[in-house]
Amino acid sequence: MHINSNYKNISETYLFSEIAQRVKKFSEQNPDAQIIRMGIGDVTRPLCSSAVNALKKAADEMGTKDGFKGYGPEQGYDFLKQALADYYKTTSGVALELDEIFVSDGAKSDLGNILDIFSDDNVVAVTDPVYPVYVDTNTMAGRKIVYLPANKDNGFLPMPSPDLEADIIYLCSPNNPTGAAYTKDQLKVWIDYALSRDAVILFDCAYEAFVTDPKVPRSIFAVEGAKKCAIEFCSFSKTAGFTGTRCGYTVVPNDLIREGMKLQKMWLRRQTTKFNGVSYPVQCAAAACLSKTGLEEIASNLEYYKYNADVITSTFDELGWPYTGGKNSPYVWVKCPDGLSSWDFFDALLTKANVVGTPGAGFGQNGEGFLRLTSFNTHGNTMEAMRRIKEVFK
Amino acid sequence: MHINSNYKNISETYLFSEIAQRVKKFSEQNPDAQIIRMGIGDVTRPLCSSAVNALKKAADEMGTKDGFKGYGPEQGYDFLKQALADYYKTTSGVALELDEIFVSDGAKSDLGNILDIFSDDNVVAVTDPVYPVYVDTNTMAGRKIVYLPANKDNGFLPMPSPDLEADIIYLCSPNNPTGAAYTKDQLKVWIDYALSRDAVILFDCAYEAFVTDPKVPRSIFAVEGAKKCAIEFCSFSKTAGFTGTRCGYTVVPNDLIREGMKLQKMWLRRQTTKFNGVSYPVQCAAAACLSKTGLEEIASNLEYYKYNADVITSTFDELGWPYTGGKNSPYVWVKCPDGLSSWDFFDALLTKANVVGTPGAGFGQNGEGFLRLTSFNTHGNTMEAMRRIKEVFK
Repeated sequence: MHINSNYKNISETYLFSEIAQRVKKFSEQNPDAQIIRMGIGDVTRPLCSSAVNALKKAADEMGTKDGFKGYGPEQGYDFLKQALADYYKTTSGVALELDEIFVSDGAKSDLGNILDIFSDDNVVAVTDPVYPVYVDTNTMAGRKIVYLPANKDNGFLPMPSPDLEADIIYLCSPNNPTGAAYTKDQLKVWIDYALSRDAVILFDCAYEAFVTDPKVPRSIFAVEGAKKCAIEFCSFSKTAGFTGTRCGYTVVPNDLIREGMKLQKMWLRRQTTKFNGVSYPVQCAAAACLSKTGLEEIASNLEYYKYNADVITSTFDELGWPYTGGKNSPYVWVKCPDGLSSWDFFDALLTKANVVGTPGAGFGQNGEGFLRLTSFNTHGNTMEAMRRIKEVFK
Repeated sequence: MHINSNYKNISETYLFSEIAQRVKKFSEQNPDAQIIRMGIGDVTRPLCSSAVNALKKAADEMGTKDGFKGYGPEQGYDFLKQALADYYKTTSGVALELDEIFVSDGAKSDLGNILDIFSDDNVVAVTDPVYPVYVDTNTMAGRKIVYLPANKDNGFLPMPSPDLEADIIYLCSPNNPTGAAYTKDQLKVWIDYALSRDAVILFDCAYEAFVTDPKVPRSIFAVEGAKKCAIEFCSFSKTAGFTGTRCGYTVVPNDLIREGMKLQKMWLRRQTTKFNGVSYPVQCAAAACLSKTGLEEIASNLEYYKYNADVITSTFDELGWPYTGGKNSPYVWVKCPDGLSSWDFFDALLTKANVVGTPGAGFGQNGEGFLRLTSFNTHGNTMEAMRRIKEVFK
């Protein structure tokens, strides 16, 4: 019996436990401090009425002889896949076949599980800073990982360098943690790179609903050539507040073929073998969010967060602090003032303004000197946090 | 870019599509035939009221500012893990720590995903006939598979032979497809075997709720030594009719250590990296099924299916047809009469009695000459099917 020894190579992430520990200590020493948490990556607005009603209606159905649903299609019900196809058409002008859409319990699951269909000898390219899941999932499989520096010189949007030899490329746009977002022209360069060497782009667009800039595509498939080289991952988590309700979707185009195999067919086989579909009531709730009323309701939640992002970025504009994100993203990635390190700025924010951020260094070495704030708190807290920051750092 | 070429070695399963095709053809030629489907492995009774109400209550909570739940613990909420620990205590006398219990979206997902923590060079033992998922998931990883013949000589319960060299052993008890169930003494032999060579038993007890024989344990952890060599997979699918609602659980004991690594810690790392937890409303529904009222309600559904199983087995007793299962299982695995092959008996049943079963040969070469019927249809259909079978085959 041998275990998968690659697990020994996964570095423990102490980022969020270290943050928790420092906040706890400060809180104990300053019991009256009104701490505002701006580090959270989780949504806070309640589920919209359309989703709640759909969940309840489906629950009632499941309790009747005629409405009961047993095993559904592993890749999702057609009613939801059709709603997603319509959503792609409306938001991005992208036409998808229903069998290219795979409904799942979330983008994180699919981003990890998709690796099943690739050989372990592929070279994987990720950005630095990076969402740690891309690194950990590939380390578990023993794949070689190369890092693409994301820094102020490239606007935190690395492009393929002439010497890059990557087989699988992760692009997250709008980006977690930097909030930077690739334009159509920039993505075209990546697509051409991937096509030139039969690489595959894993495109994480979990934050697509926050895009406002018309030059930034909400789907990589809005860019020519992508259907021959990209797989796209998205979810209802940030769009419709499904972080605790769990529903995502992955698009594997029928035109994506490598070594004579349709990746759509491989992923279908993976999912039918190792997955049994998403809860029927949850799929009903997800589809309800894409109805006319549902879309209006989730738009209002998105506006709420976007308003917070505006409050944050206008504060940084006022202070003259350079940042990325906030415009097409719930994340604001700000340069620490006065040449402070990520953790020193974290401590200064915590102790002087009682505001908690996420140190950029926790996402990779190029994150050093930066800090991430999110727009997922309330209006009141966001405004109060910015008032304090201005007072302390002006 | 290389794909995972092991996918080329997965055999396409035509079993259920072949069945569908033959039924369709017969149906077209005999439009008046009242076909009764006894091949289905899916439950049919509606979700119990406790589950429906819990789903609806949780949906309402999610729609409020204070009740909203975002990301939950990847391994499940404590309220559900505690309910499961209590269930283990009551049904099997097994004491579990909460961190040994992992809530998931279903046993099929976990049975596939657990393989992430094992090296690809392990030798895997499965029974023949077998639930195809065990074979396909290991074929995808390129592992060597050895088959343990399950036949009438061993009561469809293979035991370790002296020359068996296996690192990972799948045991499904009560078994799909044969309905045979290991006694405590038999499992002890397997546990001793696994301990003697540091192997790991993957124990699938999805049908534990059907066990009535006190000699048959409902959890492998009811048998001494199992916590040092076994991982157990179970779900609410068959117990509480959750095939479309999706909730399962996996137990990785803290005492299970291989090559110096706690498998509990490895699985925790796997799940926190590639999974984001089960939908909160679904976890509430699952916990409600384990409440006092919920347990009474699901017991009544189980009784319904058990009654059907009795109808089937008493018919076969009457006809003098040898079978396994039906007693501790929703499946009845019957020897085809008159030396018929699986498919010939399937055709005879279909054309003469208008009853659909599942040919045993579809589950492996030792399944040849057998057929699987399930107790998941209605009382009326089950009785009518048995009436016809007696009439045709008496």
